[in-house]
Amino acid sequence: MGTTDTSTARSERGRSAFTDVMTFEPPADSSPTMTGGLIDFVFAEVWTRTVLSRRDRRFITLSCVADSDVEQPLVDHVYAALNSGDISITEMRETVLHFAVYAGWPKASRFNIIVDMQWERIHRERDLPTPAPEPLLPLVTPSDPEERLVQGTATFKDVNCLPFAPDRDNPYQGAGILNFVFGEMWVRPGLSMRARRLITVACVGFQDAPIPILSHVYAALKSRDISFEEMDELALQFGAYSGLPKAAHLSQVISEQKARVLDEWRAEAGTNSEEQP
Amino acid sequence: MGTTDTSTARSERGRSAFTDVMTFEPPADSSPTMTGGLIDFVFAEVWTRTVLSRRDRRFITLSCVADSDVEQPLVDHVYAALNSGDISITEMRETVLHFAVYAGWPKASRFNIIVDMQWERIHRERDLPTPAPEPLLPLVTPSDPEERLVQGTATFKDVNCLPFAPDRDNPYQGAGILNFVFGEMWVRPGLSMRARRLITVACVGFQDAPIPILSHVYAALKSRDISFEEMDELALQFGAYSGLPKAAHLSQVISEQKARVLDEWRAEAGTNSEEQP
Amino acid sequence: MGTTDTSTARSERGRSAFTDVMTFEPPADSSPTMTGGLIDFVFAEVWTRTVLSRRDRRFITLSCVADSDVEQPLVDHVYAALNSGDISITEMRETVLHFAVYAGWPKASRFNIIVDMQWERIHRERDLPTPAPEPLLPLVTPSDPEERLVQGTATFKDVNCLPFAPDRDNPYQGAGILNFVFGEMWVRPGLSMRARRLITVACVGFQDAPIPILSHVYAALKSRDISFEEMDELALQFGAYSGLPKAAHLSQVISEQKARVLDEWRAEAGTNSEEQP
Repeated sequence: MGTTDTSTARSERGRSAFTDVMTFEPPADSSPTMTGGLIDFVFAEVWTRTVLSRRDRRFITLSCVADSDVEQPLVDHVYAALNSGDISITEMRETVLHFAVYAGWPKASRFNIIVDMQWERIHRERDLPTPAPEPLLPLVTPSDPEERLVQGTATFKDVNCLPFAPDRDNPYQGAGILNFVFGEMWVRPGLSMRARRLITVACVGFQDAPIPILSHVYAALKSRDISFEEMDELALQFGAYSGLPKAAHLSQVISEQKARVLDEWRAEAGTNSEEQP
Repeated sequence: MGTTDTSTARSERGRSAFTDVMTFEPPADSSPTMTGGLIDFVFAEVWTRTVLSRRDRRFITLSCVADSDVEQPLVDHVYAALNSGDISITEMRETVLHFAVYAGWPKASRFNIIVDMQWERIHRERDLPTPAPEPLLPLVTPSDPEERLVQGTATFKDVNCLPFAPDRDNPYQGAGILNFVFGEMWVRPGLSMRARRLITVACVGFQDAPIPILSHVYAALKSRDISFEEMDELALQFGAYSGLPKAAHLSQVISEQKARVLDEWRAEAGTNSEEQP
Repeated sequence: MGTTDTSTARSERGRSAFTDVMTFEPPADSSPTMTGGLIDFVFAEVWTRTVLSRRDRRFITLSCVADSDVEQPLVDHVYAALNSGDISITEMRETVLHFAVYAGWPKASRFNIIVDMQWERIHRERDLPTPAPEPLLPLVTPSDPEERLVQGTATFKDVNCLPFAPDRDNPYQGAGILNFVFGEMWVRPGLSMRARRLITVACVGFQDAPIPILSHVYAALKSRDISFEEMDELALQFGAYSGLPKAAHLSQVISEQKARVLDEWRAEAGTNSEEQP
C-alpha cells in the first residue's frame, strides 16, 4: 500500500512545514539543494513525521546545526526554537552548556552569542524589554571537591546505567568527567534528563567516538528516557542535519543496543516478554 | 504541474538506483534512516538526477564519506566506485592524496588503507591477481626548489583563476601551498582537473573554511571546468552526505559566485551576452 | 584532605586564570551558564593544572580551536599565544603548516590569515613596525627526489618509532607522506619535535582517524618526548576544546598505549622495573 504524492503536493507540504517549524516563510530559492533537499525532503518528509515531537526534533537539530559551523542555519533554528515557544530561554542556555561539553567550547561560544542575539531580537520584534539572565549562583551542587567527586560518581552511574564509574585519579576522568561533567553539568536544573539525552546522542553521533555513541544510545534506551521508536526517529532527524553516513552508523548502533537492552530487560524480568515499555 | 509518485514506486526506484550505484543490493533494513533517508531520498531522488554523471557524483560522495569518519560507508563507496569501473585505481589513489591535502592526512590514511583493501577484494572476487602499483618516480615536476616555487606559483594562478599568488616567505604558503600543493599535487597526472575540482569543492564545503569555499567555487566556474548546473547538482549531492546546513551555505556561495562569474565574462566579452558556456 | 573552595573563590580563580592565559580580561557575565562553565571549569580547573605548561597547553588548544571553525576564539587564542610571548612567530607559522597537514589545508588557510593579522595587531598596539617574515629558501632538505624519499623514509621511522615505512609507489604514501610530510615538514627547523607531537596528537584526536590516533600517541610516549602524565593532561585540555566524546576515545587509546610502551621498555631493559622514565 502506498500513498500517492504529486511533487507539487510534496513541495506545498514542505513549505507549510518549514513555516510551522521555522516561524517564518521559506525563501524563494529554486536551487536543487533548497527545493529537492531542504523543502521536499527535510521539511516535507522528516519534520512532519510522528512519534518524536517538534520540540524534541529541535534539540537534535540545534546540536547538529551548531556543530556544522554554518552561521545562518544556526541563527534561524535558535530564533525558531525560542520564537515558537517550544524551548524556553533557560532550557536553551543549558543546552549551550551541555553542547559545550559534548562538542567543545569553541563551537559553543558561537552558539552562545547567537542565543543572546536571537533572544534580544525576539523581544525587539515584540516591543518588549529583554529579561535579565538568571544568576549563576547559588549552584545546586556541592563546593567541596571530595563531595563533588562522590556525587559525580553517583550521577555518572545513574545517567550511564552502569554499576561502575571511572577512576578519579586521571585528569580527564577526575577533573573532567566526575568533577564537572557529571558532578555539575548533568544535574543542573533547567533542562530535563530527556532533553539532555537527545542532545548527547546527537553530539556523540557527529563526534564519531565509537564507545560514547554506543554507551549513550544504550543509556538513553535502558533508562527509558527515550523509547525505541523515538530513537529511530532521532537517527533520521540527525541524518538530515549531519549527513547520511553518520546517521547510517548511528542507526546500526541503535539496532544493536535495542537488542541488548531487550535482552537485559528480559533477564531482569525473568520472562520472555517481547513487550517494549 | 507535478509527477505522481507512490511511495512504493519511489522505494523501488531507490532500491534499483542503490544496486546500480553500489554494485550490490541494498540491505533489508527497515529503520527510518535507511528507508526514509537513504533509499527514498538519497538513492531515489539524488543519485538518479541528470546533469551530473554517476562517475562525477562518486568523486563528491567519496570525499564527503571519507570525511564523515564512518568506516562501512567508505568501504562500500570505494568498492562500488572501483567495481563499477567508473573510477580507475590510478584516479582513486590520486583522489586519496588530493583529499589528504584538502581534508587532512589522518582521515586520508584510513581512506588509503580502504582503497588497497577493496582493490584487492575486487581482484579476489574476480579470481585475478592484484596488479602492482605504479612507480612513484620519476616525478613530472622539477626538483630544484626555486623552479618548483616558480611552477607552483604559475599553477596556483591557473587553478585559482587569479592574477596573484601568495608570498613564498611563510612556511604554510611557501613550503606548503606553492612548493607542494600547487608545485606537485595539482599537476600530477592520473587525475583530471575536473575531478580535482569536484573533490576540492566538496572538501572546502565540509571543512567550513569561508574564503577557500568562495575561491574554489569561483575558480571551478570561471575556468569552465564545471558548469553552473553541474555546480548546483554538486551542492545537493554534497548535502545528502555532509548534511543540509553545510549544503545550504555552499548553495548560497554558489549563487553569489555564479553572478560574479557572469559579470566578469560579460565585462571580458564587452557584450551583454547571457549565454552560460 | 579537601580544601574549601567556594564557588565564588573558584570563579575568581577562573577569571584570574583567564586574564593570565588570554592576556586580556574575561568578558562580563552576560550568559552566566556558558560563562560560568568556561570560567569555572575550563580556566579555573583545566588551565591552572600543573604538569603541562601553559605554553604546551596552547599548542593543543590552538589546534582544537583552529579545527572548530569558529573565528573569534581562534583570533583570541592566537593573539594570546603571541602577546604572552609563550609562542614565537616562527613557531606559530610552523604550527600553521603542521596543522595544515594534520587537519586540512582549508582550515589552515584561515589560521594563517589570523596569525598574520594578530601579529600585525600586536605590533600596532606596541607602536612597533611588524618584522619582515623569514625567507623560505634555502630549505634544509634535499632537492633530489630520490634523496628526499630516502630521508623521508628515515624520518618516518624515527618520528613514528617504527622499524618500517610505507611503500613509496603510491601517490598518498610516496608523494605525500615520504616526500613531503616526513621528507620536508617534520624536519623543518623552527618548531621542536615536542611541540609537533602535541599538535599532532590533538589533530589526530579531532580527525577521528583510529590508526593515526593510536600510532601518534604511541610514538609520543615511546620517544619520551611526552611523559605519561603530560599525555593524560593533554586529553583533558583537548576535551575542553574538542568535546568530551573525542576526548573519551583519546583517553582510552592513551591508556592502552601506556601499557604497551611500558611492556616494550621492560622487554628492552630485560627487567621488571615499574619506573616510568
